[in-house]
Amino acid sequence: MSAEEIYTSRVEQVRQKMAQSSLDAMLITPGSDLLYLTGYNAVPLERITALVITQSSDPFLIVPRLERSSALASPYGSTGWRVIAWGENDDPFGIISREIASAHGSIAVDNHMWAERVLTFQSRFSEAEFSLAAPIISEIRQRKSRMEIDALREAGLAIDRVHAAVPSVLRVGRTEREVGRDIGELILAEGHENIDFIIVAAGANAASPHHELSGRIIREGDAVVVDIGGTMPTGYCSDCTRTYFMGEPDQLFLERYKVLQQAQLKASEAVHSGAVSHDIDAAGRSVLQTHDLGEYFIHRTGHGIGLDTHEEPYIGIDNPTVIEENMVFSIEPGFYVEGLHGARIEDIVVCTDTGYESLNNQTRDLVIIE
Amino acid sequence: MSAEEIYTSRVEQVRQKMAQSSLDAMLITPGSDLLYLTGYNAVPLERITALVITQSSDPFLIVPRLERSSALASPYGSTGWRVIAWGENDDPFGIISREIASAHGSIAVDNHMWAERVLTFQSRFSEAEFSLAAPIISEIRQRKSRMEIDALREAGLAIDRVHAAVPSVLRVGRTEREVGRDIGELILAEGHENIDFIIVAAGANAASPHHELSGRIIREGDAVVVDIGGTMPTGYCSDCTRTYFMGEPDQLFLERYKVLQQAQLKASEAVHSGAVSHDIDAAGRSVLQTHDLGEYFIHRTGHGIGLDTHEEPYIGIDNPTVIEENMVFSIEPGFYVEGLHGARIEDIVVCTDTGYESLNNQTRDLVIIE
Repeated sequence: MSAEEIYTSRVEQVRQKMAQSSLDAMLITPGSDLLYLTGYNAVPLERITALVITQSSDPFLIVPRLERSSALASPYGSTGWRVIAWGENDDPFGIISREIASAHGSIAVDNHMWAERVLTFQSRFSEAEFSLAAPIISEIRQRKSRMEIDALREAGLAIDRVHAAVPSVLRVGRTEREVGRDIGELILAEGHENIDFIIVAAGANAASPHHELSGRIIREGDAVVVDIGGTMPTGYCSDCTRTYFMGEPDQLFLERYKVLQQAQLKASEAVHSGAVSHDIDAAGRSVLQTHDLGEYFIHRTGHGIGLDTHEEPYIGIDNPTVIEENMVFSIEPGFYVEGLHGARIEDIVVCTDTGYESLNNQTRDLVIIE
Repeated sequence: MSAEEIYTSRVEQVRQKMAQSSLDAMLITPGSDLLYLTGYNAVPLERITALVITQSSDPFLIVPRLERSSALASPYGSTGWRVIAWGENDDPFGIISREIASAHGSIAVDNHMWAERVLTFQSRFSEAEFSLAAPIISEIRQRKSRMEIDALREAGLAIDRVHAAVPSVLRVGRTEREVGRDIGELILAEGHENIDFIIVAAGANAASPHHELSGRIIREGDAVVVDIGGTMPTGYCSDCTRTYFMGEPDQLFLERYKVLQQAQLKASEAVHSGAVSHDIDAAGRSVLQTHDLGEYFIHRTGHGIGLDTHEEPYIGIDNPTVIEENMVFSIEPGFYVEGLHGARIEDIVVCTDTGYESLNNQTRDLVIIE
């Protein structure tokens, strides 16, 4: 498919769903929704850029004048739809108001639109009913195309190569921050365009699932959780966690890690077209519960991934989402014992007709760093 | 000042201004406002984190359970104010509603709060009047403390070192993207924690102020605009533009560049405590206009910088902001001739009592790459 075909068909799907929901207009500002619908990876700026989709006429993109050439150079330029450039002394909200004057009773905005825009649109369209675009766009985005799965597979391979190199930079005596900096360089060297996050959580720090890099020195006897991800030039994200151990693991940690590994496998094996999110979560959680680790698994099992690191579908308790073929998400149980230790194993998996394909394939065994 | 003193005094300033504006509550989600007010550099997640400031009682931070330790480990932890952790099956919006049940007639939200949160808060507080936090927070944030200026000076030195190294990676025959990747490594190597943006715009691409890295090969005779910035471990940002020339510059470009250099100097020299934003803009713009380059200078002269790359105050046409001592912003005129060439010179300057201090001090002359 050409860029034109990809993006016009995505916008067409949105318009069909807008018709079903009796939505007059949808306003999409820079972010992953805009990138998904137009291929335009606009920088979020204080000057507004917005894709305006209506039922009645072709969509258009309104951009600050100095972004005009970037917008036209992006895949959006191939669609033939209008780009309206506004100058430093124009009123871009006024331009949008005039363009959708004929129908703006119900307006959806992208979920991450900034409050300063939401409130401005609300004051300009004071009679309109505002809602979120996610029920429409996430519905489409969570079902990945072959091309998107290829891009996520490429991202998975890239972050796998980083994990393969982690033992060369993770050393007793270094700080989490020093190790994190080296991992950042590896993330870029292995083909990512951006570093999205780097967690290196050693010893008791690993009991905090989203621990930030600190000056703590890594010591013999530490379990170290390394959870890393970046964005590839395609726009698609990687995200993978492995747990390392500095020297000889103690018996308690080793036993718990084996249970975790079993839980991660069971949750993965529960994935298939038609599986319910809750059941996938329960498949892993119950393994941890059986071994008295349930109370230490304090988060859901996973999140979708694509142009965002976290997106639909989510995998968790009481979540009724029915998983379909070509949905892509993480399976990442963990245990977090405050003051003592923690561990997590995370793969990105694709739901297939009969099961799952893991996009991360570095060993899930505890990696011992001698 | 201790972390506790810094952050409690910032929040106290907010509360005083809230009283003056008869604002009942302010809700601040992850981003630079939260970082400014609490020192907590929270990751923006689908699970809500929010600082809730009211007039009547101490502020509190509501965080997802798995962010609790990170929040407490941040400088916010030193304030002694509450952290309310919510679990995967709690309703965080309900918790906030109950906490501010006694006064929520007028609520301000941070300017970058996501629409999905704004609309949820609006439905929970359907009688409340919603406004933006910027009129209060930006007022405070734009006047930098000595410590903040030191952090911005450090950021300026770091990006200056990157520009000093640009001639070693900018070569005829390489693509913009290849050069950009090397510059990214330099940005990290020189002390930044994140790469915020990299513009390498060669030849006609330089006519697009926010050109994205492309596969275009850099050729003899190209002017190349290099506009780069990153975030330091302190949270403060750098941003500096220099223009390079591959080989012998042509006469037209050279003449225009000299005018630009003069414009950048004149705008900088117009900076002093009490100067009006518009007049600083006009001081540089008029130089370009006098030499028939006015029409090619298609953006404002500058933007404030701090924890965000772009923040208040802005320097532009018709902007009545009165610049005060310790405000920090860019002075970055340029010219952009579509299809032909472009150039920009950008320094970050601090307004002093009597003038300005430039935080970027690599040569502003055209840098010739032989």
